[in-house]
Amino acid sequence: MKAAVLYSGGKDSSFVAVMLKRLGLDVELYTANFGVYDSFIPASKSAEALGFNHNVLRMDKDILKVTCERILEDGFPNEGIKYIHAQTVETLAETHDIIADGTRRDDRTPKLNINQIKSLEDRKQVQYINLDSFGHRSVKLITENLFEISKERSNRDNSSDFEVEIRTMIDEMGGNSLDIFPEHYQTRVIGYKK
Amino acid sequence: MKAAVLYSGGKDSSFVAVMLKRLGLDVELYTANFGVYDSFIPASKSAEALGFNHNVLRMDKDILKVTCERILEDGFPNEGIKYIHAQTVETLAETHDIIADGTRRDDRTPKLNINQIKSLEDRKQVQYINLDSFGHRSVKLITENLFEISKERSNRDNSSDFEVEIRTMIDEMGGNSLDIFPEHYQTRVIGYKK
Repeated sequence: MKAAVLYSGGKDSSFVAVMLKRLGLDVELYTANFGVYDSFIPASKSAEALGFNHNVLRMDKDILKVTCERILEDGFPNEGIKYIHAQTVETLAETHDIIADGTRRDDRTPKLNINQIKSLEDRKQVQYINLDSFGHRSVKLITENLFEISKERSNRDNSSDFEVEIRTMIDEMGGNSLDIFPEHYQTRVIGYKK
Repeated sequence: MKAAVLYSGGKDSSFVAVMLKRLGLDVELYTANFGVYDSFIPASKSAEALGFNHNVLRMDKDILKVTCERILEDGFPNEGIKYIHAQTVETLAETHDIIADGTRRDDRTPKLNINQIKSLEDRKQVQYINLDSFGHRSVKLITENLFEISKERSNRDNSSDFEVEIRTMIDEMGGNSLDIFPEHYQTRVIGYKK
């Protein structure tokens, strides 16, 4: 029973990975990359610290381009992030029977709703798992108990979120990514709690 | 971090109990009882086989009465079962900070929807966890891998579902519980897979 988990190195995707492993599945981690910047490195370090195999999921650069165009058009990232997340899940589903991500019950974006989940499962003949069992307080409680977490001012070398390559491409396109994504703090899992 | 899990001895509530334990919570199991029949015994045996503490959650008999009246009025159990489940979750929330049950993403009844969950969490200041992360195929896959499961023709001494006391009271009220709940097979967790 192999499960492919979409992985950013953050606490939510680390949570779902550890949960599935402890429930008996063989977990492989996948971080999406669109060929614009090697943003998967922080995730690969988190994966190693947690004892998981880590892989880069090579994605079509055009998906990133469509995402950035949408975000620049909207002036805010929500719809673009929803799109790039859904496309990544679809890509992961091409080659795996059980796929998972760290979206939580109380998340708005990015997140598949129940109809999108059922459509995905039917079309791709996969099982999709996320963190809908848990509200944000339970995720916080459990992850603080499970993981050592680092918190740093966000920069493009300490995060493997979609945001890193989106920022890079938006700036290349002549936009200003700081208008879209204000500076924030970035948390990353750096190991299990001792 | 104590979590109180509503427990029937079935594979779904056993799944959520084991999941929370393996995520680091101190799990206590609770089986509802309305004082009509000692239907908690099969659940207590399953709990023991899995190494969990088991408790009986003493519930008001009037809740069972309202449930049975509703079921007899409707001629089918769905709304009554939804009511008795919701009342039991509310009762468990009176005395615990983290509560859980084994309802799954694809379940219809009994199940709290997202608005009921948020209302419960706000009113009772609790965290509620269920199996919404998983579709029925994933639950089947994972539980078959985790547990030894017995399958028998359902009778009132091999199940701890609400159904047992509902049947008993409906028959006492002069109804015929076999019209409402047709005979079926009952699965029960009897230990971990070797």
